[in-house]
Amino acid sequence: MAIIKNEKITSRDVDFAQWYTDIVKQAHLAHYTSVKGCLVFEPYAYAIWENMQAVLDKMFKDTGHENVYMPLFIPEGLLKKEAEHVEGFAPEVAWVTHGGKNQLEEKLCVRPTSETLFCDYYSTIVNSYRDLPKLYNQWCSVVRWEKSTRPFLRTREFLWQEGHTIHETAKEAEEETLRMLNIYKKFFEEYLAIPVLVGKKTEKEKFAGAEYTLSLEALMYDGVSLQSATSHYFGQKFSKPFNVKFVDRNNKLQYVYQTSWGCTTRMIGALIMVHGDDNGLVIPPKIAPKQVVIASIRNDEKVIEVVKNIETKLKNINIRVQSDISDKSAGFKFAEYEMKGVPIRIEVGPRDIANGNVVIARRDNGAKEIVKFEDIENRVLFLLDDIQKNMYDKALKHTKERTYTCNNLEEVKNIMQTKPGFVKAMWCGNPECELKMKEIRGMKSRCIPFEEEHIADTCIVCGKKAKHMVYWGIQY
Amino acid sequence: MAIIKNEKITSRDVDFAQWYTDIVKQAHLAHYTSVKGCLVFEPYAYAIWENMQAVLDKMFKDTGHENVYMPLFIPEGLLKKEAEHVEGFAPEVAWVTHGGKNQLEEKLCVRPTSETLFCDYYSTIVNSYRDLPKLYNQWCSVVRWEKSTRPFLRTREFLWQEGHTIHETAKEAEEETLRMLNIYKKFFEEYLAIPVLVGKKTEKEKFAGAEYTLSLEALMYDGVSLQSATSHYFGQKFSKPFNVKFVDRNNKLQYVYQTSWGCTTRMIGALIMVHGDDNGLVIPPKIAPKQVVIASIRNDEKVIEVVKNIETKLKNINIRVQSDISDKSAGFKFAEYEMKGVPIRIEVGPRDIANGNVVIARRDNGAKEIVKFEDIENRVLFLLDDIQKNMYDKALKHTKERTYTCNNLEEVKNIMQTKPGFVKAMWCGNPECELKMKEIRGMKSRCIPFEEEHIADTCIVCGKKAKHMVYWGIQY
Repeated sequence: MAIIKNEKITSRDVDFAQWYTDIVKQAHLAHYTSVKGCLVFEPYAYAIWENMQAVLDKMFKDTGHENVYMPLFIPEGLLKKEAEHVEGFAPEVAWVTHGGKNQLEEKLCVRPTSETLFCDYYSTIVNSYRDLPKLYNQWCSVVRWEKSTRPFLRTREFLWQEGHTIHETAKEAEEETLRMLNIYKKFFEEYLAIPVLVGKKTEKEKFAGAEYTLSLEALMYDGVSLQSATSHYFGQKFSKPFNVKFVDRNNKLQYVYQTSWGCTTRMIGALIMVHGDDNGLVIPPKIAPKQVVIASIRNDEKVIEVVKNIETKLKNINIRVQSDISDKSAGFKFAEYEMKGVPIRIEVGPRDIANGNVVIARRDNGAKEIVKFEDIENRVLFLLDDIQKNMYDKALKHTKERTYTCNNLEEVKNIMQTKPGFVKAMWCGNPECELKMKEIRGMKSRCIPFEEEHIADTCIVCGKKAKHMVYWGIQY
Repeated sequence: MAIIKNEKITSRDVDFAQWYTDIVKQAHLAHYTSVKGCLVFEPYAYAIWENMQAVLDKMFKDTGHENVYMPLFIPEGLLKKEAEHVEGFAPEVAWVTHGGKNQLEEKLCVRPTSETLFCDYYSTIVNSYRDLPKLYNQWCSVVRWEKSTRPFLRTREFLWQEGHTIHETAKEAEEETLRMLNIYKKFFEEYLAIPVLVGKKTEKEKFAGAEYTLSLEALMYDGVSLQSATSHYFGQKFSKPFNVKFVDRNNKLQYVYQTSWGCTTRMIGALIMVHGDDNGLVIPPKIAPKQVVIASIRNDEKVIEVVKNIETKLKNINIRVQSDISDKSAGFKFAEYEMKGVPIRIEVGPRDIANGNVVIARRDNGAKEIVKFEDIENRVLFLLDDIQKNMYDKALKHTKERTYTCNNLEEVKNIMQTKPGFVKAMWCGNPECELKMKEIRGMKSRCIPFEEEHIADTCIVCGKKAKHMVYWGIQY
């Protein structure tokens, strides 16, 4: 049986934006509310987020980080302490002006990010180099009053983690900045099965208040790129205005060196857009809320017994499994779990049982195979690994096919109008040229990779001497 | 070696409030911020919270609940839909009036609780009895603009979970209300080692908008009682104004029956006030971030080797263990881990090693014993169980000693001025009598137990015919 096109979803090749919206709705991931840009995260999306959190949280703790929780509110005066930071964030924050019936003496913003709160706290708890480093992280929601919004990708409220660390030396803080970028890279590649570019943001694109920003960039199915996680090095740019000082090993007062790094529920959007197809989600096994669904084809007593039996077997080897013995039709069940992107479906019907077999179907490529009862556990374990790997390889192939080396703007325009992707091109370092590039479907510099190729001597925009090789792309 | 009084902490028998504040500060649990009533949850408190979350979350999921995430903001119009609810909460919410530089058309409150958001969502996703029940929960922070605040016990922002479920019948919803109360009870008694009273709140004390409220009440060391978790039955009081309807089994349109239930970071306050002593926290082993600390007495190579060896052994049997081989003095180390309430301390010094022994000290009662190397694992496992049990027994003994049966107000006054606690007394059902009772150190009805004793025929306040036996107490 070939995979039949799900009629509830627009084809992604016909209208990618509508396809995305259809999946968010049909797979019951998110629900709009009466407050624009604020979502209900429905159980299935939240379960994906919990799995992401569990893996990342362990990675953070294994590298010595501790979780804390900072307040939701930042007084206006505190937000204003670092000039670039307030300039970057003030236009897009939500302001609390009243508590109960009383107007507040100082208005409070709902945190858009918590650098200022962490700095305020650090300034009171750090005295000596013996108190350093502090390696803190928090899981919370943040608010940015965006004008245009899209589920998971750009919402006014989103869930995220934000790491905030302070160190004795610039070297240590810079190492931390890179360490966390590499943790994100590992997470994206090994768990989400999403290949990523890593590199440094240009001055124009860096975080408001950072010395520099490192980022992860991933390419979606439609060739649009998504900034997927960032890691910032602050040097002493915050510690000076916030007065976060310590007595160093030479008994001198110094300002601490600082980092922050974060990733968000936007990653759910990335999962959809990198792996999804015309039948719905495709979730990598390592992150899938359910890795296997066992669907009964007809519900006689024997079938139900076998279904329950397989469920127990798979639970015993720690596989996240669900069985469906409802009286819905087989076709309906298959479509539902395809929509939800469950990596493996096991079909149990009377004929299979008579032969001592089940049918196992893969979500990633639709392949079906007949497997003997006694081989199910081993086969499932093998397939989960193979699906994870195959999904990464497929995404990597797509990214490579859509990564172009360009030497002139005409070429870039053509590509972006036909088969967009990442463009590698030289740049002089002038932000004016970045603005010029933006005229092509809103393209922006994605990042300057750590190892730059030498494509040409001159900037693709102005023709002056090139300073860097930059990855460019359209963004959401 | 007897336990030496920690000088950084006021004695709890001298000034209980100051003792509490000292512990919050000295054990690095929470830090005040420039926004009144908003705390930094420091790593140690947050780790306790994470352990609480992990246990409760599993209990919720094992009983079929799924996690979701609702928006932070409630539009004013939505909050106002249920009359009693808005009356109860509107005076104490924080209002967002501006997004960026623009005034909002409708002001938004920062959620004080999410009944209205859940109802709004339910009204769009439920059609048939086949869609029921919905058993949802969320972990988040909420805001209530309290006038007087105290770390963990009453803060303007706090962390909590809120379960919200809808059902086909009143019976199912009432069963759920009780089921969740019993889950909290189990959690308090078996994990937090805190005995609790359970029962129904009076009309005056119930949740704004509920048909009735069930609650857990625990007695602190100073005899003050703490409402520790609540479970509410709403009947159709929200489903009617919010229009949450479904087609029932007889093909008729019906309104759903609803519950909500929650517990908060206030539980950290309860842990402190039930178990703490003049040397700091005492954390029950099942919730302790570290269950065992291994402290070196002198740092020669051999000592460090033995410390690391024991650490590995205990990690291998899944004990949360930390070793401290810093060059701080033994006395300093002991005081630090006593302050943090680590249940077991293992002391490793050169003399002990020579004899093939270590010293094991219990935090709950200060007892020390000499244990042979080869017996450490078994002894630690036994002690963790025994400490958990002993802590519960001690708290239960205290609660029993401080639970009084009273027949007249003079008696109640005397008790509340000398050794306060729970008072069992008869009540006519009139809220006027509750108000009268409040004159005695602000006493309130705590709950009406499910099985009431017959103490007398008449109300302790007015002398009219009694309707119920009520537990009364002073509250925070």
